[in-house]
Amino acid sequence: MVRVEASPINPSDIGLLFGAADMNTAELFGTKDLPIVTATVPAKFMKAMAGRVDQSMAVGNEGAGVVVEAGTSDAAQALLGKTVAVLGGAMYTQYRCVKVDQCLVLPAGATAADGASCFVNPLTALGMVETMRLEGHTALVHTAAASNLGQMLIKICIKDRIALVNIVRKPEQETLLRSIGAKYVCNAASPTFIEDLTQALVETGATLAFDATGGGKLAGQILTCMEAALNRNAKEYSRYGSTTHKQVYIYGGLDTGPTEFNRSFGMSWGMGGWLLFPFLQRIGAKAAQSLRQRVSDELKTTFASTYSKEISLVEALQLESIAAYGLRSTGAKFLINPTKA
Amino acid sequence: MVRVEASPINPSDIGLLFGAADMNTAELFGTKDLPIVTATVPAKFMKAMAGRVDQSMAVGNEGAGVVVEAGTSDAAQALLGKTVAVLGGAMYTQYRCVKVDQCLVLPAGATAADGASCFVNPLTALGMVETMRLEGHTALVHTAAASNLGQMLIKICIKDRIALVNIVRKPEQETLLRSIGAKYVCNAASPTFIEDLTQALVETGATLAFDATGGGKLAGQILTCMEAALNRNAKEYSRYGSTTHKQVYIYGGLDTGPTEFNRSFGMSWGMGGWLLFPFLQRIGAKAAQSLRQRVSDELKTTFASTYSKEISLVEALQLESIAAYGLRSTGAKFLINPTKA
Repeated sequence: MVRVEASPINPSDIGLLFGAADMNTAELFGTKDLPIVTATVPAKFMKAMAGRVDQSMAVGNEGAGVVVEAGTSDAAQALLGKTVAVLGGAMYTQYRCVKVDQCLVLPAGATAADGASCFVNPLTALGMVETMRLEGHTALVHTAAASNLGQMLIKICIKDRIALVNIVRKPEQETLLRSIGAKYVCNAASPTFIEDLTQALVETGATLAFDATGGGKLAGQILTCMEAALNRNAKEYSRYGSTTHKQVYIYGGLDTGPTEFNRSFGMSWGMGGWLLFPFLQRIGAKAAQSLRQRVSDELKTTFASTYSKEISLVEALQLESIAAYGLRSTGAKFLINPTKA
Repeated sequence: MVRVEASPINPSDIGLLFGAADMNTAELFGTKDLPIVTATVPAKFMKAMAGRVDQSMAVGNEGAGVVVEAGTSDAAQALLGKTVAVLGGAMYTQYRCVKVDQCLVLPAGATAADGASCFVNPLTALGMVETMRLEGHTALVHTAAASNLGQMLIKICIKDRIALVNIVRKPEQETLLRSIGAKYVCNAASPTFIEDLTQALVETGATLAFDATGGGKLAGQILTCMEAALNRNAKEYSRYGSTTHKQVYIYGGLDTGPTEFNRSFGMSWGMGGWLLFPFLQRIGAKAAQSLRQRVSDELKTTFASTYSKEISLVEALQLESIAAYGLRSTGAKFLINPTKA
């Protein structure tokens, strides 16, 4: 039995919390201690939400806390009093009963807040690098690169000597990423973005991108710039474009609008969804365990997370909180502390 | 040396003929016997066309004709006087010198017109079915299904007992396809298209589509309907959607506008380019040869092509011809006959 002390609000949690509801229509009911929020789901999304109607969905992918009760096995008893991280779902709660092998004991000196985000973001960032290797690419592109996950990926790539092209939207994010060692940072809001990105792709040879935004034109722009980079030194015109496969995986939906692209990148391209859990299944238990071990070993360095605000469970359902963390904006990650009054 | 007697104008040929030029700006120069057509390439497409500037590009992927001269080898001499099909490029010409092993001798009784299209469309249709098998799907969706290629695919799928969902745009195409044995035909212009397509996907279980249109919303609609079909019998709500991989390959660009989709189909999806030549390389020489043999065996049945008009090389450069075949419209395929005055 874990007394949960810290659980992050990740974009994937927000997806489950709010589904397809329009949170501009959110209203607060219930009592001070047991708030209830309701919001309207636009009719066009009800088809996708049909399976969820009248189901109670427990939220909170990951978190950390102290083991306060344990079963009789030696392994369970050994965890008593230890601070552990758990990837178990339903972590937005005060107490959570999980199996021994779902617990990762945090290294000495690590707090629950240190370990709260030690699965989703770290394993996703490591999964991007592993996917790159598995699929024969040699460098990476990442969007929403100033996020907690993006900063982890920068640290991993520096350590593993992998060229990484970071795409951000604000000058201060560019400065931040350069300050932690990022070499290639392109600002999508800059008038020279397309040229900047193409040049970075020429220099790195990246033909694989992970896109957290999903909507809009960015994924297609990345493929177009990859194609332009590949063709820059091509000796002759190829009617079907470069024969090198260019891939963008969409792993998030920060921009919930439609995805749009001009197919101006030849015929050797792919776009698709990417999710952590199928990836971990793909690589198998042993490889997944070695990734988890790396996270534990580098918890306070490579995989350190920062939060803009710590809130209680009741605060998580206040409309002003929802309006803030619901933005999913870079550098504004909330941490739920269920022990907070 | 082949005297070319028939060579089709495929969409892939039109792509090379006109590149990114706006053919509404086409003008005819030159002489009656040696016409020259010029057209303007919009500035935004010049980047993609840069490698082509000042290069002379010979056109015509495939064709057929009679071997009128041959080298001294027995194999070459054996071809003298034979009607052969050639996948050699540069077939829009009166005479074409090719290697012996580029020639496919047509079966007795087959004319050059019968064999002119025996590579691109037949191998592409067979390639779709092979891709389905290679990637673990069990049924197919095809758009622009009333095309020559689409009709071949229907015949292949009937013969091989594969469920095929055909998407067309006109009621008369629906009638035509049903008349040649198609079971599932959905009209994208119908107000019930989304429901019709979803129902066909429920019945067939198709999770792989080949889309010739490229632009617009169709590719995304197919993924959305696949997801709805998969979820129709799902027992519980899955936040990331169905875990079954859904794939659309875009193999043409009949709609040259942007591709647009709402990501309303979970996270297990892919979209990408598909081309015949990389596919043939992927399966290897032996498998490719067995596909070619099947085409030859079924040339007058499964792989029969029809043409709306036969034109000369000079006629192919008249503005009214360009306006007609440039539409790439279903059922309006042109055949070039270089022996025609």
